[in-house]
Amino acid sequence: MNFCSDNVTSAHPQIMQHLVEVNQQTSRMPYGEDPISLDVAQRFCDIFETTCGCYPVATGTAANALALSCSAPPYGAIFCHQESHIFMDECGAVEHASGGARLHPLPGPAGKIDPKAFQAVLAQNWRGVVHHVQPACLSISQPTEVGTTYTLEEIKTLANLCKDYGLLLHMDGARFANAIQNLGCRPAEMTWQVGIDLLSFGATKNGALAAECVLIFNPKLNTQTHVPFLRKRAGHLVSKMFLITAQLQAYLANDLWLDNASHANSMAQKLAQGLDKAGLKVLHPVEANEIFVTMDQPLVGALFDAGYQFYPWALGGPDCHRLVTAWSTKPQDVDNFLAAIAQYSHNQTAIRW
Amino acid sequence: MNFCSDNVTSAHPQIMQHLVEVNQQTSRMPYGEDPISLDVAQRFCDIFETTCGCYPVATGTAANALALSCSAPPYGAIFCHQESHIFMDECGAVEHASGGARLHPLPGPAGKIDPKAFQAVLAQNWRGVVHHVQPACLSISQPTEVGTTYTLEEIKTLANLCKDYGLLLHMDGARFANAIQNLGCRPAEMTWQVGIDLLSFGATKNGALAAECVLIFNPKLNTQTHVPFLRKRAGHLVSKMFLITAQLQAYLANDLWLDNASHANSMAQKLAQGLDKAGLKVLHPVEANEIFVTMDQPLVGALFDAGYQFYPWALGGPDCHRLVTAWSTKPQDVDNFLAAIAQYSHNQTAIRW
Amino acid sequence: MNFCSDNVTSAHPQIMQHLVEVNQQTSRMPYGEDPISLDVAQRFCDIFETTCGCYPVATGTAANALALSCSAPPYGAIFCHQESHIFMDECGAVEHASGGARLHPLPGPAGKIDPKAFQAVLAQNWRGVVHHVQPACLSISQPTEVGTTYTLEEIKTLANLCKDYGLLLHMDGARFANAIQNLGCRPAEMTWQVGIDLLSFGATKNGALAAECVLIFNPKLNTQTHVPFLRKRAGHLVSKMFLITAQLQAYLANDLWLDNASHANSMAQKLAQGLDKAGLKVLHPVEANEIFVTMDQPLVGALFDAGYQFYPWALGGPDCHRLVTAWSTKPQDVDNFLAAIAQYSHNQTAIRW
Amino acid sequence: MNFCSDNVTSAHPQIMQHLVEVNQQTSRMPYGEDPISLDVAQRFCDIFETTCGCYPVATGTAANALALSCSAPPYGAIFCHQESHIFMDECGAVEHASGGARLHPLPGPAGKIDPKAFQAVLAQNWRGVVHHVQPACLSISQPTEVGTTYTLEEIKTLANLCKDYGLLLHMDGARFANAIQNLGCRPAEMTWQVGIDLLSFGATKNGALAAECVLIFNPKLNTQTHVPFLRKRAGHLVSKMFLITAQLQAYLANDLWLDNASHANSMAQKLAQGLDKAGLKVLHPVEANEIFVTMDQPLVGALFDAGYQFYPWALGGPDCHRLVTAWSTKPQDVDNFLAAIAQYSHNQTAIRW
Repeated sequence: MNFCSDNVTSAHPQIMQHLVEVNQQTSRMPYGEDPISLDVAQRFCDIFETTCGCYPVATGTAANALALSCSAPPYGAIFCHQESHIFMDECGAVEHASGGARLHPLPGPAGKIDPKAFQAVLAQNWRGVVHHVQPACLSISQPTEVGTTYTLEEIKTLANLCKDYGLLLHMDGARFANAIQNLGCRPAEMTWQVGIDLLSFGATKNGALAAECVLIFNPKLNTQTHVPFLRKRAGHLVSKMFLITAQLQAYLANDLWLDNASHANSMAQKLAQGLDKAGLKVLHPVEANEIFVTMDQPLVGALFDAGYQFYPWALGGPDCHRLVTAWSTKPQDVDNFLAAIAQYSHNQTAIRW
Repeated sequence: MNFCSDNVTSAHPQIMQHLVEVNQQTSRMPYGEDPISLDVAQRFCDIFETTCGCYPVATGTAANALALSCSAPPYGAIFCHQESHIFMDECGAVEHASGGARLHPLPGPAGKIDPKAFQAVLAQNWRGVVHHVQPACLSISQPTEVGTTYTLEEIKTLANLCKDYGLLLHMDGARFANAIQNLGCRPAEMTWQVGIDLLSFGATKNGALAAECVLIFNPKLNTQTHVPFLRKRAGHLVSKMFLITAQLQAYLANDLWLDNASHANSMAQKLAQGLDKAGLKVLHPVEANEIFVTMDQPLVGALFDAGYQFYPWALGGPDCHRLVTAWSTKPQDVDNFLAAIAQYSHNQTAIRW
Repeated sequence: MNFCSDNVTSAHPQIMQHLVEVNQQTSRMPYGEDPISLDVAQRFCDIFETTCGCYPVATGTAANALALSCSAPPYGAIFCHQESHIFMDECGAVEHASGGARLHPLPGPAGKIDPKAFQAVLAQNWRGVVHHVQPACLSISQPTEVGTTYTLEEIKTLANLCKDYGLLLHMDGARFANAIQNLGCRPAEMTWQVGIDLLSFGATKNGALAAECVLIFNPKLNTQTHVPFLRKRAGHLVSKMFLITAQLQAYLANDLWLDNASHANSMAQKLAQGLDKAGLKVLHPVEANEIFVTMDQPLVGALFDAGYQFYPWALGGPDCHRLVTAWSTKPQDVDNFLAAIAQYSHNQTAIRW
Repeated sequence: MNFCSDNVTSAHPQIMQHLVEVNQQTSRMPYGEDPISLDVAQRFCDIFETTCGCYPVATGTAANALALSCSAPPYGAIFCHQESHIFMDECGAVEHASGGARLHPLPGPAGKIDPKAFQAVLAQNWRGVVHHVQPACLSISQPTEVGTTYTLEEIKTLANLCKDYGLLLHMDGARFANAIQNLGCRPAEMTWQVGIDLLSFGATKNGALAAECVLIFNPKLNTQTHVPFLRKRAGHLVSKMFLITAQLQAYLANDLWLDNASHANSMAQKLAQGLDKAGLKVLHPVEANEIFVTMDQPLVGALFDAGYQFYPWALGGPDCHRLVTAWSTKPQDVDNFLAAIAQYSHNQTAIRW
C-alpha cells in the first residue's frame, strides 16, 4: 500500500470513462476553443458563484507559477510560508515564470503564516523605495503543506493585511477540495468572498490524471491580457485541451470532486485516530488528507518490509514521516496498516520480554 | 471535416485503450519512477539504436523549449528557419526557457535553412567576442513548417557546419514519424547518425493526446545534470507521468506510430494530387502531411460554407491556405473535399455562362 | 592615430574640469537626489522642449536595455535593423533586461529599416494571437550603425506604422548629437515631434567618460512606476550619481555637445572626401562621424604598420573597414592618414614600374 | 554634516587627480584592453598574493549580481543573511542576473550567519532532488550590514560547511578595506586562504567615485568563459574602462585604500565612544565604519534641525538609526555631532527643571 502521496493514485473511473467518451468525437478545435473547454470555464463560474478567468494546465507547479507570474513584477516580492510547496518543492518555478520575482519565506505554526510576522515585514515600508523588492502578493496553501486548514477568519485576517498594503492574495489549492470538505463551506466562501484574488485549483491529487486550473477572481487581473501569453510561452497551453478539460468536466460533475475529497479526509481521520491509539505522535491537527507522524526507524523499517510506502519528512523533524490518503484509499488499507503497526509493537514487546 | 491541423484529432483507440488499462493499476510512484516510464525510456533507446536521455513532457512547445534551454547559455544564439515553429508559433518560449537566448532567423527555400546563409552568419566569427551573442545551436524542423523534408544529405551538410563552428544541432520533430515515413529510413539514420544532438520527438499530432519527448543523443549533454531541474522548474514534470508514458508506450508498440504517419502522408498525397488535378497551385513538394495551396476567397468561402475547416497561411502569401491530414483522415474525407471543389468550379463555370 | 571608435577617446577637458569642481563639494545625497542630477533632468526637459523622464546610466548597452525593457513584455517583439547595435553588439542585453523579449531583425539599405519590410511583418497580424510574440516596439538607430541618418520624413513613416499597429518607437541615440548636427534640426524635431517614445541619449562617444541617459517622452510610460526599479535591479543605479550627471551637465552646457559633434562630423567629411579622391570606395553616405571604406589587405597592412588603428567590418563585406572620427580628431590626423594612403599608392606604382 | 552613508562622499583628491592625468592621454583601446586596466588586474593579483580573475564594474549591486550569477544555476539557491544588502537593498538584482536563482535568507546575531541555522538547512539534503532548488552558494558580507566583522575563524567555519556540501563561498566586500583594517590581516588571509571563492571588492564607499571589482579566486570558475559575457549582456562592460580602473589604480597605490578605511574606522570608534558616554545605546560592536544607535524622536528631530543627516534603520527596531563615517569625516565633525547631542540633553534637563 502506497501512502507516499495522493499523486501515486490512478484516475477515478468516472473521469477516465468520460475521457474515453469525449475522445470518440472525431475532432474539435485545439487550444481550448472546443465546447468542453468552454463548458468547463462556465462550470467554474457557476461553482464559484462569480465570473472568473479560467486557465487549465497540466501540473500544479505550472498553475502556481502561472498564477504568481501574473501577480508580481520581476522586481516584486511574493510572500509565502517557509514550508510551502512553492518555496520548498517546485525547484524555483515561481522565480522562473515571473522573471526573477522574490519568494520571501515567512514563519508560522502548523504550516500557517503568522499574521504578525507578515505584518512586521510589511511594516518595513518597502513600497516605492527603489532599493527594495516591491511587495506584490501573498500566497497561502489551503490546506497547508502540513495538512492543516486555515479558518475563514484566518484567511480574512491575512487578506486584510494584503488589502492594507496593496498586495494580491493567491491560494495554492492543490488539495482545494479537501479543505472545502474540512471546513464544510462553499467554494466562494473560502476564496473571493474572503479576499482571494487567484486560485490554483487542483484536481490531479483528487481523482484526475493531470488537471489543474488557475482561476482568477480579481476583475482587474481579468481585464489584463497577460495570462494567455504567459501560459503559452511557458509551454503550458495544451493543444488537445480537451484532455485536461474533459477530466475537469467529470471531476466537477455530480459532486465527484467533493465526494472524493470527503472520502480521502475520512480515511485520514480514521488513520490518525488509529495512530493515536497506537501511541504514536501525530504532529498537526488532521484537517485534510495528510498526516505527519513520528515513527522511529525500527518501526519504519518493519513497515517498509511489510510493503508499505511513505516518505520521511525532514521539515517535520528527525523521525517525522508523512502519510497521505486519497480518493482510492480503502478502509481496509488503513486497517491493515494499523494492524502492521500493532504487530510490530507486539513483536517488540515480545522481544523485550 | 477539419483540415486545420493534426492537433484537432482525437487519440488513436489503441492509445486510449492502453491508458485505460494502465489506469486500472491501483498506484505507482510519481514523477517518472514508475515501470511504464522506465520501459518507455528503454524503448526509445532500442528504436534509436543508442543510449539516449529521455524526458517526456506534455506539449511540443515544452519539448522544444526544454531541449533548447539545455543547448544554449542565456547569452547564446540559436539559429532557426525564419518560418519555424519556435520562431513563429511558440510565443517566445525558447527565450523564456533559456533565460533570454537569441533566436536568430535564417532564410531558405521550401522551409529549409539555406546552408550558405547559415555559413555566412557563422563566418562573421562571433565566437569568443564579448559583444556578440555566442553561436550555440541550430534548430531544424523535420518535416519543416511547410511540409517538406530535409534529405539525410541536407541534414549532414548543416551538421557539418555545426561541427565546424562548435554548435549543437537540434531537431524539432513534432511530426517526426511523418518525416521518417517520407524518407523511408530508420530513426537513427535521420538523427544522431547524421549529427543530431537533441530531438523533440512528437506524438500528439500523430495519435496521442499530449505526449512529446525530448531525446538527448549527445553524450556530453547526458552527463550534465541540468535537464531534470530545468524541466521541473518549468512546471513540466508531470506527477502522474504514466499519463504521458502510457501514451508513448502504445504509440511505439506494434509500429502504430509509423502506421499512423504512413496513413496521414498517403492522405496528403491523395489530396495534393486531387488539388493539382483541379488546377490549384500547391506551393511546396508534399513530403509529409501538410499541403499549402493557393485558393481564392470565393472558393474558400464556398468550402467554409460546405463545412470544411482549414487555416489561411499568411507566411505563404495572400491566398495561401494550409490543409493538414492526420492518422484519422479517411479517404472519403479527401474525396468529399475534392468533390466540393469540383462542385464549386462547376457552379462558377455555370455562372459565367 | 586611433580611428577604431569614438570610444577610444578621453573626456573633453571641460567635462573633466567640471567633474573635478563638483567633486570638491564635501557631500551630497546619493542615487540621483543631488542638485546636479535634478538640474540635469530639468536641462533635458528644456533642450527637448517637453516634460520627459530622465534616467542616467553609465553605458549605452544599459541605456538601450533599460529603455527597451520598459517597452515590451517578456512575450513581446522588438523590431530592429539586422545590423543594429542592439542586435549585433550587445550580447543579448535586451533579451536579458526584458526577461526574454524577442529581437526581430529587419533588412533595409544603408542601415535603415525598410518600411515595406516592416509593414510586411506587421501585416501578418500577430496581435492578440497567443501563438505569436506580441509586436511591442520598433528600435531605430540615429545615426544608423553605418553612419547614415534617417531624415525626419523617414522617421515619421516608421512612426506612423508604429502608431497604426500599436507599437512604441525607440531611438538608439548613442551618437545622437552627430545626427542632430547632420540634419541641422532641434532635438524635439528629431524625437517626440516625429513620434519617438523613448530615446537612449549618448554622451560617452562624444566627449564624456561614461554618461548615457534614457529619456522617456511618452506620457503613459512616464506615469508607470517600472523604470526606477528596472534600473536598480539591473545594477545601473549609480550611488554617486553626480559622477554621471556632472558629465552631462558640462556636456549640455554652452553647446559643448553640439560643437563636439559638429567637429567630429566635419572631420569625417574631410576624411571621406580624401578617401574618395584617393580612389577608395566609401560604402555609404557619410552623414555622421563614421566611414565605411573598402581597402585591400596590402593597403591595410601598410597603414597598420604606419601606426594607424581601425577595425575591419565583416558586415560590410570582405575588404570593408570602419573609420570613426571624434571630438578630439585633429585635421592634421586626417591629413596624415590620407598622406599615408597616398604614400602607399605611390610606392605601389613605383614597384609596378 | 551627512552621516547617511559613505556613498554621500566625494572622491578622494588623489583618485580624482589620477583620473585627470590619465584622461590627458589622447586615446586607448576600449573595454578594458588598455594598459591601466591590465595593470590594475595585475595589482589585484599582487595584493591578494594569487592569480585571480578581475572584472571591474561601476556599482556594488552590479558586482554582487555578476559574482553570484557566476555562482549558481537558474535553479540554484544562494544563501545569505536575512539582513544582507543583496537580500534587502538591491531590488532583486541577484534574481535578475542569475535568471531566477533563489536567495534563501538565514538568521544570525550581529548580522552574521548562524552556522547552525545554515547547517540545518543544508542537512535537509536537497542535492540532486529535482523538487528542490539546488544549494549553490553562500554569500557573506564583510563587514556585515550592521558594521560587525566576521573573524577569520568564523569565516572558516562557514567555508567548511560550504565545502562539505559543495557550495561556493562569496564575500560582499562593499566595505572590504574597513574589515581588513579592523582585523589587521592581509587580504589573502581574509579571502581565498579561508575559503572565499569570489569577492565583490568595493572602492566607491571608501574614496572612489564608482569603482567596484569582482575578483574570482576559484580556479575552476576562472577557466569558465561565462563571466565576460554575463558582464557584457548586463550592460556592465564600460567602454572607457579606464574611468573605473584609473580610480582603482590610485585607490590601490600607496595604501590609500587602507589609510582611508583606517581613518573611517577610527572616526566610527570615536563617535561610538561619544555616543556611549552620552548614554545612548549602540546596538552592535563597532568593527568597521557603521554605528547603529537608539535615539528617540525628539533627539533625532533636534539633530535634523541642527543640520545633521542620517537614516532611520527599520531592521534595527523602532528607534534605531544608522551613522556612517567615511574617509572624509573629520574629527571635528564627530565632536560637533556629539556636542549637539550634549546640547540637546542639556536643554531637555533644563526643560524638566
